[in-house]
Amino acid sequence: MTLRVQKFGGTSVADISHIRNVAERVIEDYKNGDNIVVVLSAMAGVTDKLISLATEAAKTPDKRELDVLLATGEQTTAAILAIILKSMGYKATSLLGFQAGILTDTSSGKARIIDIEAKRMEKLLQDRQIIVVAGFQGHNINGDITTLGRGGSDTTAVAIASALKADVCEIFTDVDGVYTTDPRICSKAQKIARISYEEMLEMAILGAKVLQIRSVEFAKKYNVPLHVRSSFDKEEGTMVINETDDMESVVVAGVTCDMNEARITLKHVPDQPGISAKIFTPLAEEKITVDMIVQNTRVGGETDLSFTVTKNDFKKALEISKKVAKDIEARGVLSAEEEIAKVSVIGLGMKSHSGVAATMFQTLADENINIRLISTSEIRISCIIKAKYAELAVRSLHTAFGLDKKD
Amino acid sequence: MTLRVQKFGGTSVADISHIRNVAERVIEDYKNGDNIVVVLSAMAGVTDKLISLATEAAKTPDKRELDVLLATGEQTTAAILAIILKSMGYKATSLLGFQAGILTDTSSGKARIIDIEAKRMEKLLQDRQIIVVAGFQGHNINGDITTLGRGGSDTTAVAIASALKADVCEIFTDVDGVYTTDPRICSKAQKIARISYEEMLEMAILGAKVLQIRSVEFAKKYNVPLHVRSSFDKEEGTMVINETDDMESVVVAGVTCDMNEARITLKHVPDQPGISAKIFTPLAEEKITVDMIVQNTRVGGETDLSFTVTKNDFKKALEISKKVAKDIEARGVLSAEEEIAKVSVIGLGMKSHSGVAATMFQTLADENINIRLISTSEIRISCIIKAKYAELAVRSLHTAFGLDKKD
Repeated sequence: MTLRVQKFGGTSVADISHIRNVAERVIEDYKNGDNIVVVLSAMAGVTDKLISLATEAAKTPDKRELDVLLATGEQTTAAILAIILKSMGYKATSLLGFQAGILTDTSSGKARIIDIEAKRMEKLLQDRQIIVVAGFQGHNINGDITTLGRGGSDTTAVAIASALKADVCEIFTDVDGVYTTDPRICSKAQKIARISYEEMLEMAILGAKVLQIRSVEFAKKYNVPLHVRSSFDKEEGTMVINETDDMESVVVAGVTCDMNEARITLKHVPDQPGISAKIFTPLAEEKITVDMIVQNTRVGGETDLSFTVTKNDFKKALEISKKVAKDIEARGVLSAEEEIAKVSVIGLGMKSHSGVAATMFQTLADENINIRLISTSEIRISCIIKAKYAELAVRSLHTAFGLDKKD
Repeated sequence: MTLRVQKFGGTSVADISHIRNVAERVIEDYKNGDNIVVVLSAMAGVTDKLISLATEAAKTPDKRELDVLLATGEQTTAAILAIILKSMGYKATSLLGFQAGILTDTSSGKARIIDIEAKRMEKLLQDRQIIVVAGFQGHNINGDITTLGRGGSDTTAVAIASALKADVCEIFTDVDGVYTTDPRICSKAQKIARISYEEMLEMAILGAKVLQIRSVEFAKKYNVPLHVRSSFDKEEGTMVINETDDMESVVVAGVTCDMNEARITLKHVPDQPGISAKIFTPLAEEKITVDMIVQNTRVGGETDLSFTVTKNDFKKALEISKKVAKDIEARGVLSAEEEIAKVSVIGLGMKSHSGVAATMFQTLADENINIRLISTSEIRISCIIKAKYAELAVRSLHTAFGLDKKD
């Protein structure tokens, strides 16, 4: 018997008629003899409404209590789906996080799942019940309600799939899969049939916001097959699975573009031990996350140091950098650029194929696009370019790496 | 150290600014050194909204799941009050029904509290925490969420006061206490300083909807002193307590009026054993609650039988009665009247004072008001009259029993 964990996001449960569609979809698989655990997000927009209610109550709402408040969103959709399923004559039971046995650590607002005590769910499945779990929430060892952070319902689904040894964890969403690049930028983007966890992680981090990053990490760790697919049609979506041999024959799986960063460069920094710490510690203290860090050695004991932060943090990061530059006597001081894009190519194939970087740089050069910064990982190469060239760069790279859809 | 359980209803927590008022009120007592457990209802109107959402999902929503849905209302207000209290610098913790240890039976939608496991609350109080409990909800032995029925937050408050041996259970509401009669009908109505549980029960049943009936029964059973008072000012309200000797010196505590009933009379019913069952069993099968039942013996083995039902049930009850009348060969059959009022006088003093009934009947007679039905309990006399005389009757009785406020 096949056990499916099916997660539906906020737009799939936006109102009663959408939730009714979810019910019909679930029932179809149930009727085929499959066992089903459904994991739901809150209705689209509800979590934001609850957060603004909380911030109306207090500028910085207490995190434990905010979790109690936010948990109502998923509680609502889970109860409603169970009501609909039962009214259609099916056996169904809603479970809140604590009822589903989802034990987390004690960090409110972004708790991590420690363990799932799956007995109750197993018993319900033996009774052929459709289980409807409120996503995004758990409980900690003190009996407090916790939430898992933005997109946490994905993680709930993956964790449950792992605990119940489900055959597949299906992530139903408003797109029909993971694409080789953003179809809004490149009309020749193709849906990817199969992608490795590693590639998906790089894609997710870089802006293809289909899956919560942590849920992919979790799926990778416990080897849970993910199926990202549309809640509006029956087409196969994208399978996110363990790396297989044939995956490496595709050199580049996808091209991504992140417009949400800004660059700061400190020039003529003295090339001494401890200098990096002097620069990045004050940023960390202000909870500014730094993405790329690139350092070039110059002649004469000096170095240029560039890094990128999100646009939100840019102003603050720039202020801090100015102070630091003064302290460490960086001459020429600062150059900063807000209108940049980070274009990346991602693929397991890079591990075994040489020449990917060369192809990337040549492609950008052919379009007269200047590269400001480069950083690489084992399966990714990222270039910072001027924002205005972003779309052109994505399309050119998409073609250059043979990703274009054949008409 | 004084321990207060303070319950605030839906209008007292209608929005953030109202909840902020609740916080200030709670803090004032806390600062005086009192320990405080707050019990909250959902924001005014929210429970109704959730019910209509559920009935949009299914005509007859599953009761277990409806409880999961409804419980979000009180969860929301409890979290928000805790957020506000903490942001003001006070130690506070919200507890949902299951976290407060409120164990109920397994009947969804109108569960009864079986036990309160108060350890967590006791520990929090030892830490001088302000505890904010989501009212109206508990959990059953299966780990399911249950709700206590309309006005259930009153019962939550009383049950917690009993479990923690609180000094007082304060019911904050939008009226400033219990009145001798409805002030909208009689401008000379007075606030009652002290009233017995028994009298309050009769008042509550008859329409002075200040307290949920079950909460008063609970308070009576466990001898919990109730203080019904306004959430908008500091005035003392009404203490609902055990009967004391001096209470009986007041013959009548209040006059009530219920316009929500209708009367059905079956005339010339054969006066035989089993006849009543034939009439009332079919009504019970249709879940129609009958309030007053009055039977008069006639000459010649026949009897007239009258009863009242709520106006909602009137049409259905009339249909059923017509069928039954045919079956049991009641001659002259039916007379029915929808425009009636039930006027009652209530008082512990009736137990020891004679003449209350006589005064009541004479007062109505003096106003030329005809009495259609009479029923009595140990501490109550009720008369059914034509609806149009209701206000006149209430005012006359209020004066006759010396309840008028002195200007």
